[in-house]
Amino acid sequence: MEKFELNILGCGSATPTTRHLPTSQVINFREKLFMVDCGEGTQLQLRKAKMKFSRLNHIFISHLHGDHCFGLPGLISTLGLLKRTGDLVIHAHKDVEPIFMPMIESFNEAMPFEVKFEHIDPSSNSVIYEDRSIKVSTIPLIHRMPCCGFLFEEKQKDRHLKADMIAFWKIPIKDLKSIKEGADWVAPDGTIVPNAALTKPAENARKYAYCSDTAYNEKIIPIIEGVDLLFHEATFAESEAARAKVTCHSTAKQAAMIAKQANVKQLMIGHFSARYESDQLLLNEAKEIFDNTLLANEGLVHDIIR
Amino acid sequence: MEKFELNILGCGSATPTTRHLPTSQVINFREKLFMVDCGEGTQLQLRKAKMKFSRLNHIFISHLHGDHCFGLPGLISTLGLLKRTGDLVIHAHKDVEPIFMPMIESFNEAMPFEVKFEHIDPSSNSVIYEDRSIKVSTIPLIHRMPCCGFLFEEKQKDRHLKADMIAFWKIPIKDLKSIKEGADWVAPDGTIVPNAALTKPAENARKYAYCSDTAYNEKIIPIIEGVDLLFHEATFAESEAARAKVTCHSTAKQAAMIAKQANVKQLMIGHFSARYESDQLLLNEAKEIFDNTLLANEGLVHDIIR
Repeated sequence: MEKFELNILGCGSATPTTRHLPTSQVINFREKLFMVDCGEGTQLQLRKAKMKFSRLNHIFISHLHGDHCFGLPGLISTLGLLKRTGDLVIHAHKDVEPIFMPMIESFNEAMPFEVKFEHIDPSSNSVIYEDRSIKVSTIPLIHRMPCCGFLFEEKQKDRHLKADMIAFWKIPIKDLKSIKEGADWVAPDGTIVPNAALTKPAENARKYAYCSDTAYNEKIIPIIEGVDLLFHEATFAESEAARAKVTCHSTAKQAAMIAKQANVKQLMIGHFSARYESDQLLLNEAKEIFDNTLLANEGLVHDIIR
Repeated sequence: MEKFELNILGCGSATPTTRHLPTSQVINFREKLFMVDCGEGTQLQLRKAKMKFSRLNHIFISHLHGDHCFGLPGLISTLGLLKRTGDLVIHAHKDVEPIFMPMIESFNEAMPFEVKFEHIDPSSNSVIYEDRSIKVSTIPLIHRMPCCGFLFEEKQKDRHLKADMIAFWKIPIKDLKSIKEGADWVAPDGTIVPNAALTKPAENARKYAYCSDTAYNEKIIPIIEGVDLLFHEATFAESEAARAKVTCHSTAKQAAMIAKQANVKQLMIGHFSARYESDQLLLNEAKEIFDNTLLANEGLVHDIIR
């Protein structure tokens, strides 16, 4: 299976602890690195994970709270010191630019590459990045400021040709593309050969959804329906449900309720409050609702599987 | 001896490594914390060192390169989350304010304390902070932008009274203050009792000098003459002397030459380039010139002694 891997760089919440760092993660999709959020210390975590800085071209920022973006100036400066030349694209709410550009410009006199800001609208469910093999779209979330999650969808591959049948029917090469895309084939004598006789389905494309920070929000369910992995914030235990509501965060149980209703294959919880000495309580509370749950942790590398 | 302690939070240079973090250190002077520089990750190092955030009231920034100040937004945000109320004073070049204020204001909607910027002139040797027991002054350095070091001077205490002699001469309490300050005493019959007969000298006040980042600069020698501890940057080994010159940094040997000429008691070197797998080479090169040299390292706590 081609690489589609989630790397957790930080999965704590705003107040840092010695156990967890502020939020950042990297999706390694066939050796292209997509970063989601960039809390303070992200560049060092990237180095510890031995990831290639040069393969990082896109950073997606969920919202402009410091624990999700204070690592940007340091990371950008380091990319400059590493003599990067290609553009770096930061996909974020339009407010990111006036806040960060004075800093980026002051600290990088002769930066050898360009930082491009692509403004996203966190309130809409829209495609914000697309290439031949992957598509990224926003997931509107409910937080104390404009905030969105991100859905990473591998593109569905063409069907696999059945070589023996192609040979049997002596199908010319020029017709193969449309067959792989699902078309039936019409023989010179007018015989219609159904596509199912000529091809096998490709593996289902994989999907990963990142939802943080957010209050409990059932509106996201149709968007994340059936994803292979859902990362959902679980800042609080159920005992702090009132505080979760006030601060527009979720409890572990609420994360699991979303996972269950959306029929996701697996749930990973993170964005843990500094108040918990151990995350086991949060895991237990989530598992009561949705058993296939795991805890995020710094350094965790997790394959997104079908 | 009253506490005068140097805590190294980070002693690497601009490109972070898994061995060293960007620059920050804290001087704990009788449980008041003075921070010098604040690279990315500083707040976490402060937490790891179990220092009380509430005791930090003054931050001194040597210059506006990212590896010396990118930790400020995160630290300030966290102080807000910790419900700090007292002012935080940042002593730095005037350019710090327009660069950092947009960020500090955007990310701290209802910050419960005030961040006050005290502008310093890095090109002058001036007192920038003073209280009853300590004085901080700038040390002009040579770098690629305005940059200064900081001299922390414990204030000289009054001389100790010799209790038996005070009793013998029946000296009234009202005269004791001037005697402690060094005055002779005139008895009612006109006898002059010399101060040395009435007092013993107090311990010498201690001095700590921080010099980073800087090219080799003999002009600082009179300012740091005889300090108990000199922290001097030693970014490069002697093999990179040409690069040190171009980038306005020092070699370990140059740091030691400054220490030797200034007759300091002890030298600590830091701000190590990412290129060295071990700092031992830098230590060896410094020790050839100035034997009482030690290496900075993250987590090091060092008493400044007479």
